[in-house]
Amino acid sequence: MVKNAIFPTLIHQALEDVNFPAQPSNLYDPIRYILSLSGKRIRPMLVLLGADLFGYKDYEKLLPASLAIEYFHNFSLIHDDIMDNAPLRRGQNTVHQEWNSSVAILSGDALLVKAYEELANCPVDKIPSLLKTFNQVALEVCEGQQLDMDFETRERVSREEYIEMIRQKTSVLLGGALKLGAIIAAAKEDDIERIYNFGVNLGIAFQLQDDILDVYGDPNTFGKQVGGDILADKKTILNVLLQQHLKDVDKQTYQSLVSSTESVPEEKIAQVKELYAKYQIKELADELKEHFTDLAYKDLDSIQIEESGKKDLSELANSLLVRSF
Amino acid sequence: MVKNAIFPTLIHQALEDVNFPAQPSNLYDPIRYILSLSGKRIRPMLVLLGADLFGYKDYEKLLPASLAIEYFHNFSLIHDDIMDNAPLRRGQNTVHQEWNSSVAILSGDALLVKAYEELANCPVDKIPSLLKTFNQVALEVCEGQQLDMDFETRERVSREEYIEMIRQKTSVLLGGALKLGAIIAAAKEDDIERIYNFGVNLGIAFQLQDDILDVYGDPNTFGKQVGGDILADKKTILNVLLQQHLKDVDKQTYQSLVSSTESVPEEKIAQVKELYAKYQIKELADELKEHFTDLAYKDLDSIQIEESGKKDLSELANSLLVRSF
Repeated sequence: MVKNAIFPTLIHQALEDVNFPAQPSNLYDPIRYILSLSGKRIRPMLVLLGADLFGYKDYEKLLPASLAIEYFHNFSLIHDDIMDNAPLRRGQNTVHQEWNSSVAILSGDALLVKAYEELANCPVDKIPSLLKTFNQVALEVCEGQQLDMDFETRERVSREEYIEMIRQKTSVLLGGALKLGAIIAAAKEDDIERIYNFGVNLGIAFQLQDDILDVYGDPNTFGKQVGGDILADKKTILNVLLQQHLKDVDKQTYQSLVSSTESVPEEKIAQVKELYAKYQIKELADELKEHFTDLAYKDLDSIQIEESGKKDLSELANSLLVRSF
Repeated sequence: MVKNAIFPTLIHQALEDVNFPAQPSNLYDPIRYILSLSGKRIRPMLVLLGADLFGYKDYEKLLPASLAIEYFHNFSLIHDDIMDNAPLRRGQNTVHQEWNSSVAILSGDALLVKAYEELANCPVDKIPSLLKTFNQVALEVCEGQQLDMDFETRERVSREEYIEMIRQKTSVLLGGALKLGAIIAAAKEDDIERIYNFGVNLGIAFQLQDDILDVYGDPNTFGKQVGGDILADKKTILNVLLQQHLKDVDKQTYQSLVSSTESVPEEKIAQVKELYAKYQIKELADELKEHFTDLAYKDLDSIQIEESGKKDLSELANSLLVRSF
């Protein structure tokens, strides 16, 4: 576990060492701000792990790609928060709330360019390949966000469509982070695809788990309001599955729950949960999560390196997926 | 003039050949839309001219960089129009007006990524250098746009600050387009910087001219409402120079003109023009434009190639700068 222990330090230090210009302050202050709302830095960590897996030890040379991924993630948070009209992010004001939408649009743009600046700092012979991968991931994330917005106004979304949306919106970035690391480590083509798929499937499982926890998580450890997605009528794997299985006899009930604006919050949550229970929706969602978890581990297993070398990645995956139900 | 004649055709064809995905339509339709509001395609043209100047004849290989520059330009238009709350662009609805702000933010983001995708299609040995240049330009454009927004709420802006703002916001992209071409043509370091500076100074002169034409242009050929900037109290080189030269005796008059909301539009324009005349502001602005035009041509002159090879670029510069006053 020595490696895992120094990686967060390396990433923390790299972020500390970044020196954005002082001016124009309305461009760079929001960037400093969003980066300081320290998330778990899982994505930059995946870049390091993706290279380390293939025996690459020159960790310093991985830091630009790590930063590129973290910058991209934060760029997408700034812009998504505008589109979602979200007032809070990690308990603090979102950028457009703290400043305004124009500042949030432009500082997001600048942060995206900054991500590409870090790509340009990567080992030079790898830049064309890194750039191509990064672009592909970035475009899929945009497509996923568009699908997410489209789904909000659509009555029915199929399970396949929903999973494709979360794959693009959140999972390809995890796969992409690992892939950047693997590219720098000069891993074989096949292995690069395997580690990418591992990240993508892990990401899908993680996102499904997030949907499940929103309803069934332990209120003491979950951190958000349990049932928040139900109250906001948000599309999640749970209501996508419910819509798919709902029999005519319950359709009226469900429809009135979804369209109601007056009901007591706790009651709405309780009634929707009753329907979930009747159709065993949690079980179906858990199965789906297990399915993608299995796929992820199969991808990892298929990489022909010593099992001990996979320990760090397995542990990270476990820590992401085993949370209190 | 053979070259100049085929370049627009090449660029037109390259744009025609682009095949954006059909779905998600809310992501790609706005991109198709903004690109169809055909501007003059000066920027992609500059990429071709910047390479041709140094004897590069493999025009097909320049098209990805051309597209990257054109995409970047259109990305910045989409986002700037949101920030400026502009309803119209080239006589048509802006993207956020035709769809909504969320669609405009996200399709702009995707278009920026598409620009980087085209960079990844450039001659592979040049990609690291092209990427670095492109990032630098892109970041300056963001900084320039932020300065422009900051200036709107500031009472005084110095001449130097104003010119630095237009340099970043609009001129570095012209220089950058030429530079990308010169890099692909494997021009010498010094010459790359010279052609870049030529573009930047040409861009500044062009932007100053734009400010001047807004007030003194021929209403029959100008295309926009003459005096529009005065009515909108927009910061331009004219009012920046006026503020710098204005004597105490006229300060009251000017202040009341700027802050008035009720005056008859034609009167406001006439009265501001009277002050411009009194302080010879147009002449000062013209001088400044000449200064940057001279600088641009000096840069071009200093490039050690046959004069005949510079003909196309000179002609383009002339066509940009000689407009009916």
